[in-house]
Amino acid sequence: MEKREHGGNIYRERVRLDFSASLNPLGMPRSVAEAAIEGVGESTAYPDPEARALREAIAGMRGAMPEQVICGAGAADLIHLFVRALGPERALLPAPGFSEYEAAVTAAGGTCSFYETPAENGFAPGEELMEALGRETDLVVLCTPSSPSGALCDRALLRQVLAECARRGIWILADECFLGLVSEGERWSLAGAVPEYDRLFVLDAFTKSFAMPGLRLGYGLCGNEEMLKVMRALRQPWAVSLPAQLAGIAAAGEKAFLAESREKIALWRGQLEEALRKRGFAVFPGRANYLLFTGPEDLGRHLMEKGILIRDCRNFRGLGPGYFRTAVKTPEENAALLAALDELSGEVKE
Amino acid sequence: MEKREHGGNIYRERVRLDFSASLNPLGMPRSVAEAAIEGVGESTAYPDPEARALREAIAGMRGAMPEQVICGAGAADLIHLFVRALGPERALLPAPGFSEYEAAVTAAGGTCSFYETPAENGFAPGEELMEALGRETDLVVLCTPSSPSGALCDRALLRQVLAECARRGIWILADECFLGLVSEGERWSLAGAVPEYDRLFVLDAFTKSFAMPGLRLGYGLCGNEEMLKVMRALRQPWAVSLPAQLAGIAAAGEKAFLAESREKIALWRGQLEEALRKRGFAVFPGRANYLLFTGPEDLGRHLMEKGILIRDCRNFRGLGPGYFRTAVKTPEENAALLAALDELSGEVKE
Repeated sequence: MEKREHGGNIYRERVRLDFSASLNPLGMPRSVAEAAIEGVGESTAYPDPEARALREAIAGMRGAMPEQVICGAGAADLIHLFVRALGPERALLPAPGFSEYEAAVTAAGGTCSFYETPAENGFAPGEELMEALGRETDLVVLCTPSSPSGALCDRALLRQVLAECARRGIWILADECFLGLVSEGERWSLAGAVPEYDRLFVLDAFTKSFAMPGLRLGYGLCGNEEMLKVMRALRQPWAVSLPAQLAGIAAAGEKAFLAESREKIALWRGQLEEALRKRGFAVFPGRANYLLFTGPEDLGRHLMEKGILIRDCRNFRGLGPGYFRTAVKTPEENAALLAALDELSGEVKE
Repeated sequence: MEKREHGGNIYRERVRLDFSASLNPLGMPRSVAEAAIEGVGESTAYPDPEARALREAIAGMRGAMPEQVICGAGAADLIHLFVRALGPERALLPAPGFSEYEAAVTAAGGTCSFYETPAENGFAPGEELMEALGRETDLVVLCTPSSPSGALCDRALLRQVLAECARRGIWILADECFLGLVSEGERWSLAGAVPEYDRLFVLDAFTKSFAMPGLRLGYGLCGNEEMLKVMRALRQPWAVSLPAQLAGIAAAGEKAFLAESREKIALWRGQLEEALRKRGFAVFPGRANYLLFTGPEDLGRHLMEKGILIRDCRNFRGLGPGYFRTAVKTPEENAALLAALDELSGEVKE
């Protein structure tokens, strides 16, 4: 298993600017922070084990039924819980991809195989995925947009995958944690299929969209009552803290903020992409709030010396040394990254 | 399995006064609330997956090594995680007792047997426990003080149990979540045995002692590196939120608050116990911040009609209708409970 390294670990080194975690560059909305603080004040009580008010708010936001919503302490919590509840013997995972899928399957005693998303497709899934579904598989994980490239797969392919999984009885875990920050992202979401297809678990989080990774809040949409029941039976009753529950309710009302975020991210991503290309980096086309690019193998270390942390992607299955992911942040922050890159390139030339 | 009902669920009915959750009646210290609020402000970053600063603070508070500390989102989170990591075939649990032990063992595919703690011993473990250890068992759960009675078992028996478990290679989960609020509670703690006995997991929480159930923070002390490694491998990297981590660090410094709490609880418990006895209720002797007593079967329902929630213990294994647990709260709150009981008794007489 690949090492469970993740972005956003600012606790090991002195980090001045963190580009390794890909969060909404507009930050946490004030209403969300205020609700979380209110939640601290109420925390002399236990949280609602059923998170009723939060599940209703999420259902309203997503056009789902509250009974189809399950909340967890971040999307990663739900990945582990869902996989444990399903207990897949053989899971089919994207490579490259988020290492927690494999960690969860391994922890649940299953084995993993991988479908490689082709570099020439920007690491979005291609026809290989359909072939891979032909192997024996209980569970396939889709990640839309892809991580760490931010590429979106063909929507016709998504429909094909859904149909093929339905035909073969394969469960789908659709990780859409970054989709809320993608322009017109809802067109790629499988959430609409939840009422029809009962082997589908759509995963989303507040972490990225509302820049609140420290609060730990994610949710899943699933039409399979039995699955949700098993998931609840496998864990403690109070999985989501009170500050996180109240923050989530506030966030569910921030539609305008999210729309503005998507617009700005698209603009700022384009600018950052172009600036990186101008500097000679090969950037993969992406539609998310992060970009995958290649550069000198020691780039991450050199940037860290300047207090800037990017995500070195060498430990992603299917990638290797020289691959990096950077978050798309505000123009000022992105300028600081570019300035540091320019300094490094000057230092190299000297 | 008994139904997973718990105290502190104030979300189903209109609760004016909650005596069903047994928390420190002095409430959450200001320093803890302030630290949690600071944590909300910092929550645009991920929490430290290794919770280093928090583990060091806990180690300092408990005289342990940071490597022996593992944190979770409340003690209930760690019960499930520990049991899952151990995977016991046969677990020996106290009856009556907290229902999450059984839920966790069942979820991990194990079977449970029970040692009944005798009513005449105030539901503290007696010699029956030693006999029960003779059966085939991988894991025994000790709860000190007992729940829901608050009784403390004989310290010589605790030492005997430890020796017998060492001889037979039985794991011990020592739930000491309420012990921090017991006068001289440290004399009953097994934490001192952690460095010597490598099949011991001592569970504690900030929930009760610092009245912060909404924040979700608990910890375990364990000298078995392999066990801690397996536990970490089985879960998401960011199990403890940033507000909870900072709140825990602040709480670890609140020694004087805890000492004052123990003193006041002992005083207020004595007063409440006497007042309940005067009213004809049979109260079991307890040393914790809660009391188990018997009364009319419908007492809980009648109190709820007055907006007061106590813990109906009918669903505890080994108890039944007519058993109730009440928290020891402040004298003013306890007086409100007693006044409501007097009203009810007047209503009955009319």
